Amino acid sequence: MIKGDYFSVKFENDKLIFLDQTKLPLVEEYVETDDYNRIAEAIERLEVRGAPLIGICAAYALALAVKGADKESRDLFEIAYKRVAGTRPTAVNLFWAIDEMKKTFEENVTSENIYAILLSHAKDIHKKDEEYCRKMGQNGLSIFKGKSNVLTHCNTGRLATGGDGTAFSVIKTAFKNDLINHVYADETRPLLQGLRLTAFELDKSGIPFSLQTDSSAAELMKQGKVDLVITGADRIALNGDSANKIGTYMLAIIANYHNIPFYVVAPSTTIAQNTPTGKEIEIEYRDKNEVLFINQDQITNQNYNAFTPAFDVTPSHLISGIITEEGVFTFPYNFLFAGRKD
Amino acid sequence: MIKGDYFSVKFENDKLIFLDQTKLPLVEEYVETDDYNRIAEAIERLEVRGAPLIGICAAYALALAVKGADKESRDLFEIAYKRVAGTRPTAVNLFWAIDEMKKTFEENVTSENIYAILLSHAKDIHKKDEEYCRKMGQNGLSIFKGKSNVLTHCNTGRLATGGDGTAFSVIKTAFKNDLINHVYADETRPLLQGLRLTAFELDKSGIPFSLQTDSSAAELMKQGKVDLVITGADRIALNGDSANKIGTYMLAIIANYHNIPFYVVAPSTTIAQNTPTGKEIEIEYRDKNEVLFINQDQITNQNYNAFTPAFDVTPSHLISGIITEEGVFTFPYNFLFAGRKD
Repeated sequence: MIKGDYFSVKFENDKLIFLDQTKLPLVEEYVETDDYNRIAEAIERLEVRGAPLIGICAAYALALAVKGADKESRDLFEIAYKRVAGTRPTAVNLFWAIDEMKKTFEENVTSENIYAILLSHAKDIHKKDEEYCRKMGQNGLSIFKGKSNVLTHCNTGRLATGGDGTAFSVIKTAFKNDLINHVYADETRPLLQGLRLTAFELDKSGIPFSLQTDSSAAELMKQGKVDLVITGADRIALNGDSANKIGTYMLAIIANYHNIPFYVVAPSTTIAQNTPTGKEIEIEYRDKNEVLFINQDQITNQNYNAFTPAFDVTPSHLISGIITEEGVFTFPYNFLFAGRKD
Repeated sequence: MIKGDYFSVKFENDKLIFLDQTKLPLVEEYVETDDYNRIAEAIERLEVRGAPLIGICAAYALALAVKGADKESRDLFEIAYKRVAGTRPTAVNLFWAIDEMKKTFEENVTSENIYAILLSHAKDIHKKDEEYCRKMGQNGLSIFKGKSNVLTHCNTGRLATGGDGTAFSVIKTAFKNDLINHVYADETRPLLQGLRLTAFELDKSGIPFSLQTDSSAAELMKQGKVDLVITGADRIALNGDSANKIGTYMLAIIANYHNIPFYVVAPSTTIAQNTPTGKEIEIEYRDKNEVLFINQDQITNQNYNAFTPAFDVTPSHLISGIITEEGVFTFPYNFLFAGRKD
């Protein structure tokens, strides 16, 4: 196994280079393109995934869509906007990013260098995400009481964001500060982001780790092998209730039962100003084939029913702290004046 | 999907007929054999599995080993005994069953109809297991307060036992008594016995059900969709601490958190007289490839580490009741005078 550097996306010489995540960790293959449609395909096929990363790729795609265009850029932009918007209809960050790009397009539609202006905005979106990741990592250091064993869920690293990630950035920064003994990564059924992607990132970062089925976490805690649980979040209500990948709520309950601190890491842009509590967060359900099939392999009868929530909501009283780029917040949470500002 | 009857093993016309469980639920294929070596292979390849069922098959195998033999039956028996004992070295029921058969063999070694005697003992072992299953099912009826939604874990039905199962027998008996609204079955990683086998059994029994990833159970409980959790047990300590498939302990904690009763169903033969508490139960670890591969399909890098407990132990204070063929026992448990008697 070659240790070393990797990136999820990079913009260079007017091209987007992205790591095809569907092949990880068994094959590490980068794709280079200046075609916005290829980027849209990559988002659709989950070659790139992770909420912030999808937004970043979508922004680059819209910039590339008007490359070389002059006066006909409006048509090009609008066709591309529709194409990109249709890739992952439930991805909040996608819409936020392309709407940002649209605003910039409208403000500069008459400009001759519209490509350069849009590209500059896409790069800003990317850079800001990187900066947030770095700050979350730094802020997270304060939750460590010494060299620790950490349990995490799903994928929250460089493969999901424009920087080193959310929860993963905290883990990586702690590791660099000699605060990590071992990381346990949940495999994260149904899509196995832990088994495939977090494992890849931990390995590349040289962090000692073990994988495990999601239902092994309680036994691991009972054996005293977990000092901290750190996860990401997809949406945080004003009272701190946090929606994240299915299985996170279960982790919070069992961490609580074993008196193990449970932390959530997310940029303040994840705080939903229109969502007072977790009760207002609607749970998305996925196609049952995500459970009945694994890695395109049919495991069981296709006409069986399945309960398939994509997310669950962890009530804030089970959360020891929420780490954003702004600091570490603790219960009782009141995020009325925090949240998306950019 | 054809509903209808099925069996895991049946002895007829001097042959064992067994359902090849490795192909379920996609293919339903029965194998007929009078060759003890073929039965040993079936145990090794997990074509038959489930603690009581392995014991039953092993007993039939030893009877078949001396079929047609006369005076040379000792050699035949001893070769077969070694062959069968080597199939699943950690299966307690296997050794119990073949030692029972060995005793009968020794007592009747000079008898001319040693095959008939051993076959009769194997059939007794089978019948007794069937009877225990029926009694557990009946005893379990008392835990229902009305038509209920039940969550279960792993496989505990006819595919694992000589009768209708342990936890599954309770569910099936309750269903026949109009006490089941819906059953939720955990997929049960790593080997997916829920997704493949429990689903098959529920479907065959006409019981309405849904499958789910193991980490979805907490969300299901939060939504009020679970009235009772019912699981099996592999080993029960005298104080009621119960070892069962990995993930059971987690279920007990989250059921407790949501004030949902959590029941364990197992024959009294599961109570280990030499085990005062759960602390004395050693956790078995499985090959990490059970996590890194799914259904023979490599998901992630083979040199990654994995935490792979096969079982976990649920402390008795989290168990609302333990149902055996003798009745329903409740906390504080004291099984000093119960347990394996036969």
